[in-house]
Amino acid sequence: MELTDVVKARKRLSGVIHNIPLEHSARFSELSGGNVYLKCENRQLTGSFKVRGAYNKMAVLKERGGCGRVIAASAGNHAQGVAFAARESGIKATIVMPRSTPIVKVSATEGYGAEVLLYGDCYDDAHQKALEIQAQTGAVFIEAFDDDDVIAGQGTLGLEIVNELQDVDVIVVPAGGGGLLAGVAKTVKSLKPGVRIVGVQAAKADAIKRSFDEKKLLSLDNIYTIADGIAVKKPGKRTFDIIKDYADEVVSVTDEEIASTIIDLMERTKQVVEPAGAAGLAAVLHGKTNVKGLNVACVLSGGNIDVGFIHKIIEKGLIQRGRELHLSILVNDAPGSLAKISGITGDSYANITSVRYDRAVAEIHLNEVILHITCEVSGKEHGARLIKRLSDAGFKLLSPK
Amino acid sequence: MELTDVVKARKRLSGVIHNIPLEHSARFSELSGGNVYLKCENRQLTGSFKVRGAYNKMAVLKERGGCGRVIAASAGNHAQGVAFAARESGIKATIVMPRSTPIVKVSATEGYGAEVLLYGDCYDDAHQKALEIQAQTGAVFIEAFDDDDVIAGQGTLGLEIVNELQDVDVIVVPAGGGGLLAGVAKTVKSLKPGVRIVGVQAAKADAIKRSFDEKKLLSLDNIYTIADGIAVKKPGKRTFDIIKDYADEVVSVTDEEIASTIIDLMERTKQVVEPAGAAGLAAVLHGKTNVKGLNVACVLSGGNIDVGFIHKIIEKGLIQRGRELHLSILVNDAPGSLAKISGITGDSYANITSVRYDRAVAEIHLNEVILHITCEVSGKEHGARLIKRLSDAGFKLLSPK
Repeated sequence: MELTDVVKARKRLSGVIHNIPLEHSARFSELSGGNVYLKCENRQLTGSFKVRGAYNKMAVLKERGGCGRVIAASAGNHAQGVAFAARESGIKATIVMPRSTPIVKVSATEGYGAEVLLYGDCYDDAHQKALEIQAQTGAVFIEAFDDDDVIAGQGTLGLEIVNELQDVDVIVVPAGGGGLLAGVAKTVKSLKPGVRIVGVQAAKADAIKRSFDEKKLLSLDNIYTIADGIAVKKPGKRTFDIIKDYADEVVSVTDEEIASTIIDLMERTKQVVEPAGAAGLAAVLHGKTNVKGLNVACVLSGGNIDVGFIHKIIEKGLIQRGRELHLSILVNDAPGSLAKISGITGDSYANITSVRYDRAVAEIHLNEVILHITCEVSGKEHGARLIKRLSDAGFKLLSPK
Repeated sequence: MELTDVVKARKRLSGVIHNIPLEHSARFSELSGGNVYLKCENRQLTGSFKVRGAYNKMAVLKERGGCGRVIAASAGNHAQGVAFAARESGIKATIVMPRSTPIVKVSATEGYGAEVLLYGDCYDDAHQKALEIQAQTGAVFIEAFDDDDVIAGQGTLGLEIVNELQDVDVIVVPAGGGGLLAGVAKTVKSLKPGVRIVGVQAAKADAIKRSFDEKKLLSLDNIYTIADGIAVKKPGKRTFDIIKDYADEVVSVTDEEIASTIIDLMERTKQVVEPAGAAGLAAVLHGKTNVKGLNVACVLSGGNIDVGFIHKIIEKGLIQRGRELHLSILVNDAPGSLAKISGITGDSYANITSVRYDRAVAEIHLNEVILHITCEVSGKEHGARLIKRLSDAGFKLLSPK
């Protein structure tokens, strides 16, 4: 894959996909000490950068005489990218997705006109099935990352960044299979060798990081991360060959750092980003790579997150930030206790969301009961004030102490 | 307020605030039958359009000889708009906010360098206190909407829309006090009388709609809506005088329609919008105004929503969409029942999130227990399949029937 391939890919993609201008973030700049720009591929067509590689691949197929049908396996962004690209290219597409794929992703893929086959319990089952169908039908298999035309398509993102932000110092890119990292690294280094390219992986799915550090392609048997978009056991051979030569460093972030960054992005920039899409910014905000005083472009690679999952992330985030307070209070099992406690919480502007009585505890007396109260407070300080008022009123808090 | 005031305001604001390009939405176009463009003021500096009016007001004050200090009362976007505008204009600002204001909004306002005074239980208390301080200190009171310079500032948003989308047919604008609606209506009608201007209010806070329909300024004693940004009992006199002459219609949307639109915006366009900010699009998606075959610009007026509140909205949305299923099952109070049921739910790819046993019900026998199970499913069809499998296996569902 050479720079000329990326330049050609960009011409093919021009007018087909969005070129979303970089967004400067004063708040993230302040938090990181760098000068942070966001490349919002979460708002790209199909909700992720994947459409770039998929469309470029199909355009190349057409230029070489066309193909009747393509096939791919994916539970995520690649499915939507391939389906959209096939429709735009007038090619029929079959996508095999695991049966556990959320309905929203299935219907989005079908919405672009692809035929969806639900098969198996996980990605590997679906992938195997797709290969079988490919062998029977002769459809062209569209790889998610380990393909030169796909890598060249992803590289267009690097081209856009250096064209728009001439004095960029660092580009931070999430990495799973390595298609985006490889494409961006080779493209940017070919044009501006001084720009530092940083790949970001999930801490428990860091095959590229380990491979990069040990300078040989490794794969992992067990991976776990909430960032499904970059949860890859075996990086591509083509992608790794480029990454080892052109990337400057590969770092990793924890799921907690990713989750907290998703909430920051919602609060600060009013953007919804999927876990993989938040990994790059998470690395910058949590000091995994040096950005002090530098112009940093952070790629928010995708936005396809299920609202049910956002719900869970916020729930954890609210507790972490002290916004949801769980109180366990030992009280006399007699009328009036709840009235006193709820009076104090109300006066303190704390909002009770649940109350549960627990009598079945061996350690307490028959005339006692444990009252478990959950309430919303504005933060840790507010929670501490409420706890103090309850203690001052003589209530015995079992938790928090 | 004349068009020339808006043109001047735009010059003052140029280079200070973002001019965010309209975003076309294929999905919302399809759902509404119109050709829908979004004006994303949720991503404006300070998270809402309010900064336009506040900054213009202070720029005018400076042109007229300056002022040492400004004061305002607000629990929301006006606070951040005034604080930011004051800092940019080199003016000291005091903002009185009700004590119940979420810490994030207080710290955002303080972050722009304003002095924040927490006072009273509600906006009216804070407003009263701000007037007292104004009388003592001689600071200039910055109105949230009923001020010609503020209205002219908000009008710049209309100017941007007609400049960018020459063939716009309809502009849909959320309305509370009426500053944005008045500014946009007068501006756009002065330039392109054929463009239809639609104001959108919350159904239970619809003072402007009632005033518009009855052609006289009315105020309401009791209002209720989740859209705090447009929850106004008494619209402005100046704003209403403009709205009655220049707006074409004022419609209303329910809180449920607003909540569902907030989720749609997160899923489809990866944007976080506050309830008031979603009201305009809610009207378009729920057929409150005719947009069939027309070019529609929808103003997403702000994005300052608390993540705790997003959490609640998603929770309701998941139940409405059949994504969270609550089962009550009558089982024998003996070992093995939960194993069978959880086996069936697991085989059906439904994820159990809570289990509760209820024995204290008069209607059931001593050897029976009610099992309340909450599980995540991919939608109503998936839930129905699970219910059928449980019934087929002989379990007696008390709810849903």
